[in-house]
Amino acid sequence: MRLRLQDFFFDEENGEVIIEAEKPGIVIGKNGVTLREIMKAVGWSPKAVRTAPLKSKTIENVREFLINVKDERKEILKRIGERIHRGTIYEDRWVRVTFLGGSREVGRSCYLLQTPESKVLIDCGVNVGNVHQSPYFYVPEIQPLDSIDAVVITHAHLDHCGLLPILFKYGYRGPVYLTPPTRDLMVLLQLDFIEVAAREGNPTPYESQHVREALKHTIPLDYGVVTDITPDIRLTFYNAGHILGSAIAHFHVGEGLYNIAFTGDFKFEKTRLFDRAFTNFPRIEGLIMEATYGGAEDFQPSRKEAEEKLIEVIKRTIERGGKVLIPTFAVGRSQEVMIVLEEAIRNEVLEPVPVYLDGMIYEATAIHTAYPEYLNSHLRDLIFHQGINPFISESFVRVDSPGKRQEVIESSEPSVILATSGMLNGGPVMEYFKAFAPDERNTIVFVGYQAEGTLGRRIQKGWKEVPLPSSGGKRDVVTINMEVETVDGFSGHSDRKQLLNYVRALKQKPEKVITIHGDENKCIELASAIYKTYRVETRAPLNLETVRFL
Amino acid sequence: MRLRLQDFFFDEENGEVIIEAEKPGIVIGKNGVTLREIMKAVGWSPKAVRTAPLKSKTIENVREFLINVKDERKEILKRIGERIHRGTIYEDRWVRVTFLGGSREVGRSCYLLQTPESKVLIDCGVNVGNVHQSPYFYVPEIQPLDSIDAVVITHAHLDHCGLLPILFKYGYRGPVYLTPPTRDLMVLLQLDFIEVAAREGNPTPYESQHVREALKHTIPLDYGVVTDITPDIRLTFYNAGHILGSAIAHFHVGEGLYNIAFTGDFKFEKTRLFDRAFTNFPRIEGLIMEATYGGAEDFQPSRKEAEEKLIEVIKRTIERGGKVLIPTFAVGRSQEVMIVLEEAIRNEVLEPVPVYLDGMIYEATAIHTAYPEYLNSHLRDLIFHQGINPFISESFVRVDSPGKRQEVIESSEPSVILATSGMLNGGPVMEYFKAFAPDERNTIVFVGYQAEGTLGRRIQKGWKEVPLPSSGGKRDVVTINMEVETVDGFSGHSDRKQLLNYVRALKQKPEKVITIHGDENKCIELASAIYKTYRVETRAPLNLETVRFL
Ligand SMILES: [Zn+2]
Ligand SMILES: [Zn+2]
Ligand SMILES: [Zn+2]
Ligand SMILES: [Zn+2]
Ligand SMILES: [Zn+2]
Repeated sequence: MRLRLQDFFFDEENGEVIIEAEKPGIVIGKNGVTLREIMKAVGWSPKAVRTAPLKSKTIENVREFLINVKDERKEILKRIGERIHRGTIYEDRWVRVTFLGGSREVGRSCYLLQTPESKVLIDCGVNVGNVHQSPYFYVPEIQPLDSIDAVVITHAHLDHCGLLPILFKYGYRGPVYLTPPTRDLMVLLQLDFIEVAAREGNPTPYESQHVREALKHTIPLDYGVVTDITPDIRLTFYNAGHILGSAIAHFHVGEGLYNIAFTGDFKFEKTRLFDRAFTNFPRIEGLIMEATYGGAEDFQPSRKEAEEKLIEVIKRTIERGGKVLIPTFAVGRSQEVMIVLEEAIRNEVLEPVPVYLDGMIYEATAIHTAYPEYLNSHLRDLIFHQGINPFISESFVRVDSPGKRQEVIESSEPSVILATSGMLNGGPVMEYFKAFAPDERNTIVFVGYQAEGTLGRRIQKGWKEVPLPSSGGKRDVVTINMEVETVDGFSGHSDRKQLLNYVRALKQKPEKVITIHGDENKCIELASAIYKTYRVETRAPLNLETVRFL
Repeated sequence: MRLRLQDFFFDEENGEVIIEAEKPGIVIGKNGVTLREIMKAVGWSPKAVRTAPLKSKTIENVREFLINVKDERKEILKRIGERIHRGTIYEDRWVRVTFLGGSREVGRSCYLLQTPESKVLIDCGVNVGNVHQSPYFYVPEIQPLDSIDAVVITHAHLDHCGLLPILFKYGYRGPVYLTPPTRDLMVLLQLDFIEVAAREGNPTPYESQHVREALKHTIPLDYGVVTDITPDIRLTFYNAGHILGSAIAHFHVGEGLYNIAFTGDFKFEKTRLFDRAFTNFPRIEGLIMEATYGGAEDFQPSRKEAEEKLIEVIKRTIERGGKVLIPTFAVGRSQEVMIVLEEAIRNEVLEPVPVYLDGMIYEATAIHTAYPEYLNSHLRDLIFHQGINPFISESFVRVDSPGKRQEVIESSEPSVILATSGMLNGGPVMEYFKAFAPDERNTIVFVGYQAEGTLGRRIQKGWKEVPLPSSGGKRDVVTINMEVETVDGFSGHSDRKQLLNYVRALKQKPEKVITIHGDENKCIELASAIYKTYRVETRAPLNLETVRFL
């Protein structure tokens, strides 16, 4: 029997050979016959996994790195295991959370969950608006850094994991719990973060070696897997519906003593990519939730309205022979828009038009294809049972060189281009923008939030001329004649109504709800609305404050 | 010229000879002539201080000890000085307080004031109701203990300073700031605390050597003296009107950055002993205030009513040939009652009757006489200008031996007895109680709060028979026929109205008011009343929480 096996991996820790194959069924064989034959021949227990249809360089590198450091990892895991099972000391019973970043602000999310026995850090993010402002690492609660028992990363966005490597730079050597997709996306985004900084001549807060050090200490956990992470805390991840692998981190403290969940960023609505955020916790007394759109006026259009508007804009642009430029972040929004376009083309709502993917979007999409089990039930059904993987539709064309980019720009055919960055503050999107802006047949469509001070925001506001740094160091002035559209409703965050509904949908009504990850007034307004609606204690703490739960 | 000088002390640190004299004016001489002569003769600059009219063993011991360790103290002060002037490091500007004990409870007061540069611990008390419950010393905010820059003690009651020596037992070696009377009263009460524990066969949390170690690190500050205590914090004490030397600790952070005051226990009413608490802070943005009587119903009778009732009760007891037993704490309430009785006798409102002082009351009174400048203006006027010192009235008779006590008990003459402890849970008061209770001509008068579970409380409730441990280990049952009276209004704490008035009386309206040192509902009700009355942000935090001020 000859199989086209993509790759073999020997996992000594688990005594397994991992065999990647496009069709794992063939490796397994009828009733597992083939697997057993392989085991007899090589003396190892083989495990077949599906080859991702798009090849991700990140996943390849991560896997290779982890294999190279497997002896060291074995030592690390042993040490972590000993620490987890060190036994408890204190008679006191309390649970508290210190807010080290990301409170009454969006950015640098970082929270310390503490009991007499344990210190668990949840997220460790960059302040995207001000890269020089990190979480409050220097406060005594987490000093020395190695007094932290465990770090938990809710998802791969940089405002949640962008400064994780700094912990390793300054001496943390404990575990990092996250989902497998979060691990891969995180590495991709962290490396990009320091590359971009270096390219722009900015000091980087850490080096790639610290990204690798962090990676070495990761412990991936799938949704629903219950794990002891300290002598008195058990962690379980649940789907947050925000981006691939995004998790709500649920902590069970003591034996039935207290249960507290950090939502991270979450979407309480089924999207094109994900099921809506999990609510069915067996117990939950404390809830720490995001409030990005927690303001009294923060209602968004439905997904359906958003999609219809997007298709409409694309249609009319194509009809007049123009090109559609959609600036997006690489992770999440891009894939969401891809699925909408693929379905519209497949169902002939939209004529077949090339959709170009530039920047990290292709790589991020490849990672999505490696984790189909993290997608929503509809996509899983399409992929596993109907053999349709929307991500590998031939409508999508990767732009992976300056030459190819130039070709796309100069082509006279209508097309759609998805390119990073999402707010036009750098990245390949800038090239397209410069070329397309003067032609009134073209359209730029914003599908994500444009922060104050970004070029994206200025264009949204209706500026007709914008200065841009040109290659020669001088400034070009770009005249904007293209159509400018904004399509709200694609957000990966819950809007005001979804946030409130989420609290209502929880199986157990929490005793205390804390609002974070939102501007000051959003956090306060959401806390106040939850208090008024459900009569549970709420708080919108400040950074550096500590709130007690038990 | 021959002077009867009481004592000489050479203070090498300041290059001074301290000369104690009953009449310092004689030592000083006309225009300071005598002082200059002494200086010529001995080569030292002499400083005359008043000999206290009552001799305090505590003060004598404290002074002697400090002289013995003066070389070591010189080293300590040098080290402290270097640390204070170490310079600042951080660009961040924030101020926060962590509540380590005494929040939503009375007892184990302990608060950490923190800036990026500094850690200052305010108070370090015993939980009087449960001696095994200390403040949360083990949390990372104050670990290791020597990361604390300074400890500030607001007053000498054990719920504020009773566990200070534990800090030294476990490695703290920094300064302890307090007023001079607080220093002396504190040593008296701490030594008594461990003596009583040892006598009752209970484990003591520390030994007398740790009391001495703490004493060695004290830095006494008078009211109104501004002192650098860390690179970015200046401390000033102000009169709190609660007990001798009790202080409101005012902290000036940064150069004009933020001002925050801890009231400690305070009385916002002029009493027999003290002026009312200070309000005239140049600036105050944050206020942390006690809430012992912060409940919606916590109004107390006026001082005048209380005094009239007390005199009335004593009069009628004496008229029927009985004895009046007043259980009191040694510090504060005793001296308050003494002043009332002395004035009543001096003004012939009450016939001259012996007032016996048993327990630590005499010693505590002696310490009061050493610090006349800490008493209110009326007493200072009496003592300095009219030559009347009520504390040394011949009506007061010290009981300093079991024989003397027996004599007082067996005497057929009417008398008043002030004896410790204040809640009848031990101390010499028990002997008097056993002897007096069966005789209906006698009266017991409660002038202080009787905690639930104490014998005092049971008697107040009207129990007619109470079991008492007898000397032989068996239990005597004591029948109570004596009159039982309670006189409210002598409290050293502000009542509800005074608490609210205090906030109003502040020169600058604070931005944030925190209520502590009260039962849960008192703290919450006071916080709510202050918010509603003055529209300033208020909070009643839990132990282990951290509140940010700037
Ligand atoms: Zn996110
Ligand atoms: Zn986020
Ligand atoms: Zn007190
Ligand atoms: Zn107190
Ligand atoms: Zn100074």
